[in-house]
Amino acid sequence: MPSNPAAASIIAIGSEMLGPTRVDTNSLKITATLEDYGIALVRKSVVGDRLADLADEIRYSLAHSDVLILTGGLGPTEDDLTREALAQAFGLEMEVDESIVQRIEARFAARGWTMPVVNRRQANVFRGQTTLKNERGTAPGFHLHIERKDVWVFPGVPQELEWMLETYFGPWLQQWIGARARQRRVLKISGMTESGVEERLKPYYDAHDHEPLTILASGGQIEIHLIGDGKEEDAKAAIAGRERELLAIFGEKIFGFDGDTLESVIGRILTERRETVSVAESCTGGLVSSRITDVPGSSNYFMGGAVCYSAESKMFLAGVDPALIQQYGEVSEAVASDLAKGIRRRFHTTYGIGVTGIAGPGGGSEAKPVGTLHIDVADVHRHEHRKLFWPMTRSMFKWFSSQSALDLLRLFILRHER
Amino acid sequence: MPSNPAAASIIAIGSEMLGPTRVDTNSLKITATLEDYGIALVRKSVVGDRLADLADEIRYSLAHSDVLILTGGLGPTEDDLTREALAQAFGLEMEVDESIVQRIEARFAARGWTMPVVNRRQANVFRGQTTLKNERGTAPGFHLHIERKDVWVFPGVPQELEWMLETYFGPWLQQWIGARARQRRVLKISGMTESGVEERLKPYYDAHDHEPLTILASGGQIEIHLIGDGKEEDAKAAIAGRERELLAIFGEKIFGFDGDTLESVIGRILTERRETVSVAESCTGGLVSSRITDVPGSSNYFMGGAVCYSAESKMFLAGVDPALIQQYGEVSEAVASDLAKGIRRRFHTTYGIGVTGIAGPGGGSEAKPVGTLHIDVADVHRHEHRKLFWPMTRSMFKWFSSQSALDLLRLFILRHER
Repeated sequence: MPSNPAAASIIAIGSEMLGPTRVDTNSLKITATLEDYGIALVRKSVVGDRLADLADEIRYSLAHSDVLILTGGLGPTEDDLTREALAQAFGLEMEVDESIVQRIEARFAARGWTMPVVNRRQANVFRGQTTLKNERGTAPGFHLHIERKDVWVFPGVPQELEWMLETYFGPWLQQWIGARARQRRVLKISGMTESGVEERLKPYYDAHDHEPLTILASGGQIEIHLIGDGKEEDAKAAIAGRERELLAIFGEKIFGFDGDTLESVIGRILTERRETVSVAESCTGGLVSSRITDVPGSSNYFMGGAVCYSAESKMFLAGVDPALIQQYGEVSEAVASDLAKGIRRRFHTTYGIGVTGIAGPGGGSEAKPVGTLHIDVADVHRHEHRKLFWPMTRSMFKWFSSQSALDLLRLFILRHER
Repeated sequence: MPSNPAAASIIAIGSEMLGPTRVDTNSLKITATLEDYGIALVRKSVVGDRLADLADEIRYSLAHSDVLILTGGLGPTEDDLTREALAQAFGLEMEVDESIVQRIEARFAARGWTMPVVNRRQANVFRGQTTLKNERGTAPGFHLHIERKDVWVFPGVPQELEWMLETYFGPWLQQWIGARARQRRVLKISGMTESGVEERLKPYYDAHDHEPLTILASGGQIEIHLIGDGKEEDAKAAIAGRERELLAIFGEKIFGFDGDTLESVIGRILTERRETVSVAESCTGGLVSSRITDVPGSSNYFMGGAVCYSAESKMFLAGVDPALIQQYGEVSEAVASDLAKGIRRRFHTTYGIGVTGIAGPGGGSEAKPVGTLHIDVADVHRHEHRKLFWPMTRSMFKWFSSQSALDLLRLFILRHER
């Protein structure tokens, strides 16, 4: 068993991943395998095909971790330098394995082709180290013991990599670590900023000796990741305890867990209650409806919506009173409320959502600057309104506004239990 | 001017990108900017939030390049250690810039909030180095001169990063390198598969000695990237020649160039012609309207839309004839056509778009399986219909269907010039 917690690094090799269009996704599969065994990835990098740089990178990366995983650069061409770089980095000797040459020749022959001479390079292996047979392609992988650490070398072709992770790497981790160790729980918060969450967490940090929490902010919501290592039941119990504390701190601000989205949570609530919703939206341009309908089965509770980009359509689609538009303007509390009420009546739904605002970049004024948002949720008895301000790019404004509207619906339902 | 060719490195900071679910995409934007100036990226890495590791990584990475770009880790929380790591790596002194504190306070005040105390950390700057004002968020960036090399530090929030690349980094590269060295032109194709594009390119490849083209497929469209290096006029002329050949091959299948999207192209066409559009959509659930309204200024030509998730709403919002629903069902050519015609009449727009289909995973039948799609575009004189089949995940189905509908509108307008 390694030092606790064991640290891993990944190097992806190939200049094609250093351009502006392609990312390395192989590392995600490796990371998922590592996580299953509670091994933390401390760094990952992408390097091109300069031999000296590559050898440097390999040495540097292994110095910072217990286990190093390399992918790519095992092909037959002169750009494929992973073998040479490893030999240079660690002073290893190479030799040709004729049984691999024969395997590669057989693979070509099976397609009616002759093996190109360059493919002989793929039969170069490290003397005294473990070669990993590749049943999905031509390039073998390697498992090297270097300075009492482990270096794994896999092909970059996704199918070949996946097969090797399953066949060699997973079983080795199982033996190395003992058993799957890591448990994870994600709590999702809406309607707060990252620093607002941190503020509220102070007593929690104080109570737990400043044990760190992973907090991620993106797209108008915050995730808190709870991680538990060690024996499965103990880890689960520890996470459950922390979760209870966080629920006590954040209450209804926590809208969901793990894979939940605001729209999937709303879907679950509406389905359970056999209730329905409709939407009349202006500045979000259809995004609120589109997010609601991203959820499989949403046709059971979402009846439809109106995208009211003109004043007329607010009247003829959602039944807004023209006098209100006249008096308060299209972007106003009164019109947001009338949109919510009007669309609800039109669709005979339990709830109606109304959204109006100024997405920009044009259309703002001193009294109603770009970023102004009015949202409203109504049922047959009551309605709730919120005025918000999201001064940001057009697409961000649309997203944050949809987030605010969906969250208002969620809270409206939870607060007005029937 | 730097050594030729100059070498750049990128470090993305944040443990969230070391998990199994999220990749660093910020580096792609930085790489594209570097490429514009012919600067090669030699390595990129992702590191978490351990101070000593981070400082090591920064020193190692700068040793291997002329310019180093860091993103992320500039937030207000204790995990955000980029500033501290830089100070440690290069022995820099930090000080609080009170003008930044005031700017952050003002940003919070604009939303009616008080700045949390933790945000003061974001006003820590490096004595004697350049601080980059952030007009899109709270965290400033930095430009450091270290050992006669350049280190740029940007926030990890994509919008803030992009703004800083445009505002500070591009202009600096322009000065540093002298002029844009690399010319790039992207041609965008809709309504074809990647292998269909490759087929049609055969004569082109033959004519050009199999000189490779970069072809990227994503989200239902294909991009062909033309790249020219060398003297600006020569590179531009070479690209223009290739572009003419490709236009001759693909014709109207090429919907746009460079930063164009289908929705921005439609916006340009409608604006030029002073025409308008409205949408009645079922299975896309608002996505077609939402994409159209992603374009700034779309309120000039998009009047609104109806999301008709129920049979009733197809009648009362878009005026579909109940007899057609009765006879052909909600997912049918007849209903798609009536949605397009009906919504156009309702909104008095030049064009109407109708979309109906089965997104799944439920709701399919043998006659109308999941993935079935009917789209229709109408003006006052005529209409055009297409039946398509996109058997894929729900969200992919929605996206591909919106892509098909927007492309049908584009072609309908181009083919029926008045």
